[in-house]
Amino acid sequence: MKILVINGPNINMLGIRETNIYGLENYSALCERIKAKGEELGIDIELYQSNTEGDIVTKIQEAFEKVDGIIINPGAYTHYSIAILDALKSITLPTIEVHISNIQRREDFRKDSITAQACIGQISGLGILGYELAIEALKKHIKG
Amino acid sequence: MKILVINGPNINMLGIRETNIYGLENYSALCERIKAKGEELGIDIELYQSNTEGDIVTKIQEAFEKVDGIIINPGAYTHYSIAILDALKSITLPTIEVHISNIQRREDFRKDSITAQACIGQISGLGILGYELAIEALKKHIKG
Amino acid sequence: MKILVINGPNINMLGIRETNIYGLENYSALCERIKAKGEELGIDIELYQSNTEGDIVTKIQEAFEKVDGIIINPGAYTHYSIAILDALKSITLPTIEVHISNIQRREDFRKDSITAQACIGQISGLGILGYELAIEALKKHIKG
Amino acid sequence: MKILVINGPNINMLGIRETNIYGLENYSALCERIKAKGEELGIDIELYQSNTEGDIVTKIQEAFEKVDGIIINPGAYTHYSIAILDALKSITLPTIEVHISNIQRREDFRKDSITAQACIGQISGLGILGYELAIEALKKHIKG
Amino acid sequence: MKILVINGPNINMLGIRETNIYGLENYSALCERIKAKGEELGIDIELYQSNTEGDIVTKIQEAFEKVDGIIINPGAYTHYSIAILDALKSITLPTIEVHISNIQRREDFRKDSITAQACIGQISGLGILGYELAIEALKKHIKG
Amino acid sequence: MKILVINGPNINMLGIRETNIYGLENYSALCERIKAKGEELGIDIELYQSNTEGDIVTKIQEAFEKVDGIIINPGAYTHYSIAILDALKSITLPTIEVHISNIQRREDFRKDSITAQACIGQISGLGILGYELAIEALKKHIKG
Amino acid sequence: MKILVINGPNINMLGIRETNIYGLENYSALCERIKAKGEELGIDIELYQSNTEGDIVTKIQEAFEKVDGIIINPGAYTHYSIAILDALKSITLPTIEVHISNIQRREDFRKDSITAQACIGQISGLGILGYELAIEALKKHIKG
Amino acid sequence: MKILVINGPNINMLGIRETNIYGLENYSALCERIKAKGEELGIDIELYQSNTEGDIVTKIQEAFEKVDGIIINPGAYTHYSIAILDALKSITLPTIEVHISNIQRREDFRKDSITAQACIGQISGLGILGYELAIEALKKHIKG
Amino acid sequence: MKILVINGPNINMLGIRETNIYGLENYSALCERIKAKGEELGIDIELYQSNTEGDIVTKIQEAFEKVDGIIINPGAYTHYSIAILDALKSITLPTIEVHISNIQRREDFRKDSITAQACIGQISGLGILGYELAIEALKKHIKG
Amino acid sequence: MKILVINGPNINMLGIRETNIYGLENYSALCERIKAKGEELGIDIELYQSNTEGDIVTKIQEAFEKVDGIIINPGAYTHYSIAILDALKSITLPTIEVHISNIQRREDFRKDSITAQACIGQISGLGILGYELAIEALKKHIKG
Amino acid sequence: MKILVINGPNINMLGIRETNIYGLENYSALCERIKAKGEELGIDIELYQSNTEGDIVTKIQEAFEKVDGIIINPGAYTHYSIAILDALKSITLPTIEVHISNIQRREDFRKDSITAQACIGQISGLGILGYELAIEALKKHIKG
Amino acid sequence: MKILVINGPNINMLGIRETNIYGLENYSALCERIKAKGEELGIDIELYQSNTEGDIVTKIQEAFEKVDGIIINPGAYTHYSIAILDALKSITLPTIEVHISNIQRREDFRKDSITAQACIGQISGLGILGYELAIEALKKHIKG
Repeated sequence: MKILVINGPNINMLGIRETNIYGLENYSALCERIKAKGEELGIDIELYQSNTEGDIVTKIQEAFEKVDGIIINPGAYTHYSIAILDALKSITLPTIEVHISNIQRREDFRKDSITAQACIGQISGLGILGYELAIEALKKHIKG
Repeated sequence: MKILVINGPNINMLGIRETNIYGLENYSALCERIKAKGEELGIDIELYQSNTEGDIVTKIQEAFEKVDGIIINPGAYTHYSIAILDALKSITLPTIEVHISNIQRREDFRKDSITAQACIGQISGLGILGYELAIEALKKHIKG
Repeated sequence: MKILVINGPNINMLGIRETNIYGLENYSALCERIKAKGEELGIDIELYQSNTEGDIVTKIQEAFEKVDGIIINPGAYTHYSIAILDALKSITLPTIEVHISNIQRREDFRKDSITAQACIGQISGLGILGYELAIEALKKHIKG
Repeated sequence: MKILVINGPNINMLGIRETNIYGLENYSALCERIKAKGEELGIDIELYQSNTEGDIVTKIQEAFEKVDGIIINPGAYTHYSIAILDALKSITLPTIEVHISNIQRREDFRKDSITAQACIGQISGLGILGYELAIEALKKHIKG
Repeated sequence: MKILVINGPNINMLGIRETNIYGLENYSALCERIKAKGEELGIDIELYQSNTEGDIVTKIQEAFEKVDGIIINPGAYTHYSIAILDALKSITLPTIEVHISNIQRREDFRKDSITAQACIGQISGLGILGYELAIEALKKHIKG
Repeated sequence: MKILVINGPNINMLGIRETNIYGLENYSALCERIKAKGEELGIDIELYQSNTEGDIVTKIQEAFEKVDGIIINPGAYTHYSIAILDALKSITLPTIEVHISNIQRREDFRKDSITAQACIGQISGLGILGYELAIEALKKHIKG
Repeated sequence: MKILVINGPNINMLGIRETNIYGLENYSALCERIKAKGEELGIDIELYQSNTEGDIVTKIQEAFEKVDGIIINPGAYTHYSIAILDALKSITLPTIEVHISNIQRREDFRKDSITAQACIGQISGLGILGYELAIEALKKHIKG
Repeated sequence: MKILVINGPNINMLGIRETNIYGLENYSALCERIKAKGEELGIDIELYQSNTEGDIVTKIQEAFEKVDGIIINPGAYTHYSIAILDALKSITLPTIEVHISNIQRREDFRKDSITAQACIGQISGLGILGYELAIEALKKHIKG
Repeated sequence: MKILVINGPNINMLGIRETNIYGLENYSALCERIKAKGEELGIDIELYQSNTEGDIVTKIQEAFEKVDGIIINPGAYTHYSIAILDALKSITLPTIEVHISNIQRREDFRKDSITAQACIGQISGLGILGYELAIEALKKHIKG
Repeated sequence: MKILVINGPNINMLGIRETNIYGLENYSALCERIKAKGEELGIDIELYQSNTEGDIVTKIQEAFEKVDGIIINPGAYTHYSIAILDALKSITLPTIEVHISNIQRREDFRKDSITAQACIGQISGLGILGYELAIEALKKHIKG
Repeated sequence: MKILVINGPNINMLGIRETNIYGLENYSALCERIKAKGEELGIDIELYQSNTEGDIVTKIQEAFEKVDGIIINPGAYTHYSIAILDALKSITLPTIEVHISNIQRREDFRKDSITAQACIGQISGLGILGYELAIEALKKHIKG
Repeated sequence: MKILVINGPNINMLGIRETNIYGLENYSALCERIKAKGEELGIDIELYQSNTEGDIVTKIQEAFEKVDGIIINPGAYTHYSIAILDALKSITLPTIEVHISNIQRREDFRKDSITAQACIGQISGLGILGYELAIEALKKHIKG
């Protein structure tokens, strides 16, 4: 089983960026914990981060028939990228959306998720743990 | 460690209610799985279900200084109960909101969550598994 | 054939409440006329009134596989109770919504009906006669 | 007692038009059933159908002091014809609005009724039976 | 000099229709006063009334190069007829819009005028006198 | 008979200000023509211009039981001065609102009139002639 | 003279709940001060608190012809309970709405009051003193 | 193969009407070019123009089982005629909507198309050529 | 202790202005009662009324370090004067807003208060008594 | 004559992506048909596809004074890319927008086109044929 | 060269008013720095401050043909004064708008500028320095 | 001291693009003037231009702890790029936003700035001079 984990713009600034909202752990720590969780569950994890909407679209397209599921934190693109929504719809892989902070508690423009409309579910506000739970959930979903 | 799990209106109709959206497992199965998860993690679980907004408010108030955290699926009240939001704010216990279906994929009036504004996070669309993951996350959050 | 007739908040104040809008007949008269209509058509009528949203939800749930159809005047809850909407959807019984006054001629916040989205039809503005017509219509609908 | 029954645009396509929404009976059947109901209740029925907003306005104006009440299904004009609203207001005859489908369950632009603001009440979603009930109700209303 | 005076739907019901809003004089009186004003000012007046949007559009088109100016009370169509707006724009004759009642004091949906966007000016709330003033103004406008 | 003519902010810039919209005649010409019209009709005219909302409010208050009617062009205050609306309502004198340009053809924020809600009618787009017509109309209104 | 004082959801959490907004005095202190004020003014005070919308509706209905006036702090229900609005309208007793905090300074969804539409007035932001002032005002209102 | 080409209000004013937007060719030229295209492709073309919404509705209804497809330029009715939308839906013939000007570059109220919701596609901004392309496209669509 | 009482536009028309809304007592009576209350409570009262937004702003600025608190009825300016809001914020004196009528029961544009965002509380709908209660409350607030 | 054909995000997934909406032909087929059409009409076609908004902007800029016209299907960027709109405006080449599906029949957020505001016209809902028709139309437009 | 610098309501409270937003320098310091800048650049500076909208309108009108340019900080009036917008438009002098704080980072009602629509540009958020830069920019603009 | 100057999409088309809005000077001239200003003030300037949102995000991230401040003209991205907003927030460097044209005078969708919410200030409408003033201001801000 292979899962692709996509992180959108500014997630690579974790630990630097607004630490009162996103916490003190940095992006490397995030990667470590995701990989460790993959190993624990016997899942092949591919990690990808990009600040560019189009590159994320391309990465999703390339996942078609290559991976079993996707975990995505589209960052700011969550709220306006119809292009990422369409990419996820085009490949019809089971996908879970993750947000480090609770988007319902922030600015109004962060409350809606365009991209979640192509996902089976969403986990928000649970920090890096959200990724680990998403991996567990996606594994169970794929195994049926 | 004690966690209160509150289910709002019509969650007790699980397995009967719109099974294309909510799945075939019924409310007893939900309770069983939550209790089993509690036992597995050594957490004392109290289960509560009510169709009445005011009773849920009262239950939350009574949890003050009695439990360590709350998992709540406010059902329809998610979208308009300022009273439940205020109750959660009044006791300041760590709370995770759970939804069986992905509320971002449904009618417009189900996309916003009033109650999530008093929660640390939200898990939606992962079925009954969402409750189990919430228990894991809440345990880690409480233990810090 | 059994039909459950549910009246929501303040319908019990009929004859007292804003008689320029709701007319002079009181709630007992309403009940008498509904029962008489039931007898005339050979239908077993159960009458229920509550001011509490959650109690109406519970009553609807309990009707599951017990009655053949529902007539509901949700009163003020018509305009915001997603919980009652969900309850009606969960039991999938044929339901007709009745309003004593013509809700299209009143305040803007009374024009939309959340609950009618789970009903086969709606009768409004015809006073107590609306209930009698709804019983006739429901009988024909159930008999096919 | 004389009642004018007005059907607006595309009601004459009944049985052809979107039968999943409007049912299989055609416009002739609708006319037959309305006439039969009139005979049963000793009411003189005049049937009128037009696709043209202005013709419906004129027909309503001509009814002034000629008939005792009006039953109207304004079809699509329900949602935007201030001209029909004004015509109904200008003659002040008791009027009941009928819709074959439940307009609360359809597209957003079909939920509001401009014309119902000049009616004593509205019956929707009960198919052709809605017209029959409206005749009953209008008779009782006129007789007081 | 020739002026076409167009009255839209339900203006022919003057004196019958909502006399608290539109006054007690009837449509004949309106016509008489307009004709008298025309004679007084040496203007050839053509009077036209129709309840049908399309007929008003056609009448406006036919006025092209036949009359020197138009006075129009589009009645209910004021608020939604883009077709009448387009007709007025297509012939580019000086046009004044008249309303018997003050549309700024009525329902919200009567406050905007689509058709006035193709007019040089608008007179509202001055009753039948509004037409007489419009004739005076139009004469002065045409003579430059 | 005495009529107070109030001109709001920037009307004194007539002939200077945006002449493509407001025309080439200046404010003195406006005053001349209004006075001439008053003399012609045997009406005592008082002219008042101010750029200050509060001064216009005070002027309206002082007119109470002093004049027979008011003609007002509130200029920019038309669109937001609830204070002028309240002043007009407090003295209950017949008032006609005049606008030199056709406010329905300009920016969206110039389409609504707050102040016209306290007026019997409104004349717009007819230039300085609009004031003359308003004087005629007000005279007829006051004489009944 | 008898006055019913109704407190809605979470008011019983006073002194615990968000003390930066609602102050440090608890619900018992609130009751004490209200009762003391009643005694001072020779008014019979009945105190009622409930978290349940329907129970508040029922309490209001039962006050019909039993008390001389009502003071109500509907808490969160202020902003969405049409049912409480209807209950207050049905009994037509003089009612004053009280809020401990200034609702105009809080979240947007707390700025509108549905229930105040059935009240003679509203006092907000003055803490527990607001109740005392309301009792004074209500006494004067009832005595005329 | 037979195709009905319907032109709505004011299309007959082509060459007269706002030539900066709609071009200099007149309605006859439009008809000639459409007929020529029909002959070129071996299609029987019926041309129809009306300013009246109801007549367009009737024409569409009459096309049922008489023609193989429809090309429609509903003119102003594009933006508000639910009646034409319903007529198109009732006959379920393949339909292409054509606009001479690019409606996305004009006033906001011309950007949405109600009627296009019943069409397979839309061509706008290409002038009379748009009709010719629509005939080509419709022929290919019908032939499959 | 010194309190400045500011009354905005048209409050000076009390007893003349819309007496069905504002009552029969005139502005002098209002001043008398406020002064009497001040004497009763040993407070030095300064009364100020102006129709001009800018003068009210200046008066508020001048109160800086001169008075102990402000009671303000901004009249119509309540709903749009960001300038008065800013003035109140700039001097940070405790302020209570008073309205003679219940603004929640009037036109929509009177429901929001811009100025109350700089006040500790608001009293509305209690007539002149509202000022007296505000003085009591302000005294208690200042004394802490 | 040279025409640049730009396809935006996810058009390269044609035949894979939501085939119920976009049809079964894949992106290669699309390219073949466009090239064939170019050859047929003696036009030099350059094909470009990118998922990245910025790359499409750059490609448009590079077309300045290099090609005679552009055909663009901006995919998801249609609905929010002001950057692509600005790029098209900066080079002022004749451009036609093409959509494979009829965007007026899909989700609300797909109904508006930002980019069409810089185009001479738009063809939507006609599948791959839409590109072929656009080439024909652009050729005629360029040749005048 | 002469430049008029206008400061609107509450700018005179600088150094007192909300110093966390507007800084610690007071209005005299502001005046000093502006005058010094004028001297440095050889520009005659006239300084004007008023809290009254109408006085600012009058001041702008008086600048007509007297000064070479205007720098304006309309304070709160920025967001609603159509009167000041009209005054600026009536004199057509080059004008730059200055705000001490960054209005895009504050309350929603401070984000739009009505008055900037009559200005060549806007500088915000740069404190008193913003005025100095505006003087430099205006000098260059006037000199061409 | 080092300042990074970022120009977003289509700024490189300066002098070509809509010269009536953006002026005749081209992008090289812009770069020259910025560099000259840097030299004049002894500031090390780095110039960067990109059409790609993600590349701008990356450039901003890379500036972290490398430069002393940023001047950014995000072009079209100003109005929708939450990703650039987040990038600016993540590095917390002093930033000034510059626009060549006055965005308050253009289309509605250009009036709001998402990105300015992370800036200390904004200069718009002053052409290339705006960049020069921004450099001056940023230098003073950094030096404190």
